[in-house]
Amino acid sequence: MAVGFNSALIVGAGSGLSAALARAFNGEGVKLALAARSTGDLAALAQETGASVFTCDASKRTDVEKLFADLDGGFGAPEIVVFNPSYRTRGPVAELDPAEVEKSLMVSAFGGFLVAQQAIRRMLPKKSGCIVFTGASASVKGYAQSAPFAMGKFALRGLAQSLARELSPQGIHVAHFVIDGGIRGAGRSDDPNKPDALLDPDAIALNYLNILRQPRSAWSWEIELRPWVESF
Amino acid sequence: MAVGFNSALIVGAGSGLSAALARAFNGEGVKLALAARSTGDLAALAQETGASVFTCDASKRTDVEKLFADLDGGFGAPEIVVFNPSYRTRGPVAELDPAEVEKSLMVSAFGGFLVAQQAIRRMLPKKSGCIVFTGASASVKGYAQSAPFAMGKFALRGLAQSLARELSPQGIHVAHFVIDGGIRGAGRSDDPNKPDALLDPDAIALNYLNILRQPRSAWSWEIELRPWVESF
Amino acid sequence: MAVGFNSALIVGAGSGLSAALARAFNGEGVKLALAARSTGDLAALAQETGASVFTCDASKRTDVEKLFADLDGGFGAPEIVVFNPSYRTRGPVAELDPAEVEKSLMVSAFGGFLVAQQAIRRMLPKKSGCIVFTGASASVKGYAQSAPFAMGKFALRGLAQSLARELSPQGIHVAHFVIDGGIRGAGRSDDPNKPDALLDPDAIALNYLNILRQPRSAWSWEIELRPWVESF
Amino acid sequence: MAVGFNSALIVGAGSGLSAALARAFNGEGVKLALAARSTGDLAALAQETGASVFTCDASKRTDVEKLFADLDGGFGAPEIVVFNPSYRTRGPVAELDPAEVEKSLMVSAFGGFLVAQQAIRRMLPKKSGCIVFTGASASVKGYAQSAPFAMGKFALRGLAQSLARELSPQGIHVAHFVIDGGIRGAGRSDDPNKPDALLDPDAIALNYLNILRQPRSAWSWEIELRPWVESF
Repeated sequence: MAVGFNSALIVGAGSGLSAALARAFNGEGVKLALAARSTGDLAALAQETGASVFTCDASKRTDVEKLFADLDGGFGAPEIVVFNPSYRTRGPVAELDPAEVEKSLMVSAFGGFLVAQQAIRRMLPKKSGCIVFTGASASVKGYAQSAPFAMGKFALRGLAQSLARELSPQGIHVAHFVIDGGIRGAGRSDDPNKPDALLDPDAIALNYLNILRQPRSAWSWEIELRPWVESF
Repeated sequence: MAVGFNSALIVGAGSGLSAALARAFNGEGVKLALAARSTGDLAALAQETGASVFTCDASKRTDVEKLFADLDGGFGAPEIVVFNPSYRTRGPVAELDPAEVEKSLMVSAFGGFLVAQQAIRRMLPKKSGCIVFTGASASVKGYAQSAPFAMGKFALRGLAQSLARELSPQGIHVAHFVIDGGIRGAGRSDDPNKPDALLDPDAIALNYLNILRQPRSAWSWEIELRPWVESF
Repeated sequence: MAVGFNSALIVGAGSGLSAALARAFNGEGVKLALAARSTGDLAALAQETGASVFTCDASKRTDVEKLFADLDGGFGAPEIVVFNPSYRTRGPVAELDPAEVEKSLMVSAFGGFLVAQQAIRRMLPKKSGCIVFTGASASVKGYAQSAPFAMGKFALRGLAQSLARELSPQGIHVAHFVIDGGIRGAGRSDDPNKPDALLDPDAIALNYLNILRQPRSAWSWEIELRPWVESF
Repeated sequence: MAVGFNSALIVGAGSGLSAALARAFNGEGVKLALAARSTGDLAALAQETGASVFTCDASKRTDVEKLFADLDGGFGAPEIVVFNPSYRTRGPVAELDPAEVEKSLMVSAFGGFLVAQQAIRRMLPKKSGCIVFTGASASVKGYAQSAPFAMGKFALRGLAQSLARELSPQGIHVAHFVIDGGIRGAGRSDDPNKPDALLDPDAIALNYLNILRQPRSAWSWEIELRPWVESF
């Protein structure tokens, strides 16, 4: 079943999840734009998936405005937008650096707003589009010694829920994934005695595609995913 | 992508959602058994989908034991089990008939336990299988003048969550759908001025299939579905 | 500050929490009725608190109707009703006895309905009263190997939430406590190296009184309580 | 029953709720410090309650550090800290000013972190203290056309939950109030035909005091308050 959209922008494209999404979208014939703060490592993925690549710090208003202006000038307005960036810092609350806490809010949540706003302005006239936010366990549970990540991810979830209420009746699908476990890759590999205890990026990507395939009479706004052996 | 299972039992098979699920499973080549309290209306669907039909009041222990014994004798143990029955009564709490409240608990929740237990006993040796419970808005929100439905559906959700925690690490996928809106059919049809304001049974069925397709590294235990224009 | 009510019925009066509540109510000058399935152990508490004692299996409709008829004949309609009974059985789901699961639903949830309905019929004409349901960790989290308790406590929570929505605007305060930890007493005593790791029944009772004291412009319907060292 | 603490700092002291809290604390013999961005209107309240007054923009790190340094120099470290500031902007997401969205995050959430961190550094050596965050309906529900408020209040809730998990076992009580309705005052007065449909600030303050009175064996981390006639 086709995903029903022709183009996608993935923001925070440097992660293993983003790479899996890029390949999954490409496999569906969806034209791709990849945006990341640092694009040096994206050349191979771009080549493999035919993606256009853009440099963008999503927590910076001017960067995000420039990204969408650039897209307008060639790629066109993306019909799907996936927002993946996050930033975290850990430690006893008494020892946290306030600048790092601010950065957590700016990257994980404010960046999500900036990207969503630009995308929505372009989706509203067509009354169509899909925006997907990537959350984490910390989106719904504030862990000890991890207040900054909880702050950023809770805020992103508040944004996603508010946008879902506002935009669904205007034809724009807003979805929020709670990735409740570690993701395979980036130095994390499965314990051979505990297979599939890490989320496979391709398995996550399959679920993102399935959300895009939902007919509008049966939309989800939030989906949680966790490995079969993960405690919750 | 294949659903990865060969046989399914749908309990509470008389609803429009169950019919859509039956057709969807059949379309995937999954062998079907349909169980309902009253099977008089299931002949056409059974013929269409090649399903075996069983009479079973899922809130009765002996009925459920007989159902699975009968399955053992021919159809075999179902690899997928969908539990759909529910019963509700509405009205000011002061005026409710206690017998109806008890029935709500028995049909919506206790029946779910009875069916799940029989299914699980047969799935555990294979460390494989999928059990899907169908919930409603009332699964997560207790509405005024609707305490019995809330009681039954909250209880079913408690069952599903507990089973997910217990059985996921044993290879059995347990999922709970929150159907947050009216379902098209059974006398409910769309307002032409408000298209897709009712959940299309086929759209719901698509989502059930997609849960069955999830690799075990990225399972959902709960999925909410609502029409694009539904307020929440 | 006075609790603002003159009489209370505690159902499930045999527990240590109920005894603490009885003493707390008595300390506020609230007239007391205690109901339990077995009242043999309640003599001392009744004497101490001046309570009337009634035998009642709260999961039985005729028992509950008789209890309130008896109250009508002398004690009067209670202005406060606390519902404490619960029943649980544990074990791998495949091994649970269905009769025990049914009993969990009947005692923990259906009994709550029966008692609440009788109480509400008497509160509605006065547009006043308070009903408090005692929940547990299992009210909001379904644990592995504990499906029956989750079913009963989730259902009770659904009842409480529905009643709060229905009855608050009619002047009746409905509250649900989530007791998230072990309660001191009944053979459970504190580890001297881990003081206050169990909930003190008197500390819980203080919180129940404080809910009764809430002015109607600022009511809570759900309150969670846990020991300072309890993980959650 | 005494609240068990001797001193309190209220941040965001200019609101009607803060004034009610100041009077309630003063009534319990608790020494008071009031902090607000603009303190011009606080003279009468300070005189009435004997409070010390401090100018502080809680979203500014240097302001918050100076506030606590000033307190250290005379008032002493507050044993209770209440964080009340919030900032919101409303409108269709496409039309929101990003600078206003950033301000919502900074005032409602980052300010909460800055104040909590300074307070906690002073509470940890004593293994005692209480930090209360004031939330809103938007803390748990993201409304359409109100994404910025949801972002700020969700983030504050994530902070509060994380701090509760981290600090409760160290003797510091962290609580988060969900004020689910309009507060009387500041131009909002009750409809005479709908009495107590707005939260009375004194009723809220009573609930804050009651949280301070909780023994450590039965702490709440989250408490929701709403008027009896508020739908939810």
